[in-house]
Amino acid sequence: MPLELNTMIVTKGNEKRMGENDFVLEKKDYRLYPLEIPIEVKKTIDSETTAMALIKKLEWENNMTTITYQLISLHSTN
Amino acid sequence: MPLELNTMIVTKGNEKRMGENDFVLEKKDYRLYPLEIPIEVKKTIDSETTAMALIKKLEWENNMTTITYQLISLHSTN
Amino acid sequence: MPLELNTMIVTKGNEKRMGENDFVLEKKDYRLYPLEIPIEVKKTIDSETTAMALIKKLEWENNMTTITYQLISLHSTN
Amino acid sequence: MPLELNTMIVTKGNEKRMGENDFVLEKKDYRLYPLEIPIEVKKTIDSETTAMALIKKLEWENNMTTITYQLISLHSTN
Repeated sequence: MPLELNTMIVTKGNEKRMGENDFVLEKKDYRLYPLEIPIEVKKTIDSETTAMALIKKLEWENNMTTITYQLISLHSTN
Repeated sequence: MPLELNTMIVTKGNEKRMGENDFVLEKKDYRLYPLEIPIEVKKTIDSETTAMALIKKLEWENNMTTITYQLISLHSTN
Repeated sequence: MPLELNTMIVTKGNEKRMGENDFVLEKKDYRLYPLEIPIEVKKTIDSETTAMALIKKLEWENNMTTITYQLISLHSTN
Repeated sequence: MPLELNTMIVTKGNEKRMGENDFVLEKKDYRLYPLEIPIEVKKTIDSETTAMALIKKLEWENNMTTITYQLISLHSTN
């Protein structure tokens, strides 16, 4: 089974806000992310880190990965 | 993050039937299973294989793994 | 990083014998195999299981995976 | 098989220099690291990042993980 080892969250603007700091993001393919460990959130792979987050939930189904994550800090870029 | 690479389903009798051939099983810890690939189903690690199944869905949350699987063949033991 | 979760050894005849029961097999891409757990050895994905083996060593480098495995039983097909 | 998903290199001072920017580090247990992707190098899990590195090789054997990595940038802490 092909899977992708991911060490950061790259949203491409597809995240959906579920609560103040809670987001859900759906991505193609089966992707392995670390849960409950601070990881970077970026809009694209080459963009600056915009925040740090904890992934609280990961789901694999129909060749899709859905993660639920919580922002824990924002990087301001004044 | 600790995870466990699993190559078969060991139910310990904890599976819940959801449909004719569909079952849900919750296990402690984060466990990596192959999806959509025929794997063995056993009651305990040392028991005989009772069936083959396809895992259709995997979820990780709160240090638990939940898999949804579909039996594809039964091993009769005449 | 793309990787492939593998639950059996598919040799395609490319294994190299290193000792009586010891073989080395090189495969393209990064592949995740369980170590020290009995897994099936097959010539092709659709062929019959020819043996059971324990993987003793796994190496990833230059987008290649090299495994060293030990046969633990043979399936005769009289 | 238990394994540990790692997203950074924590040396605890056990790395061995093999060349100007090349190091080998041996760790207990089977650990999954991303290869050829920039990851942080730290002395302890709570210390500051001292450098970024690319892991060029990963080996699993006898319940040990050996990684070979190349420093790609240093973080000075004036």
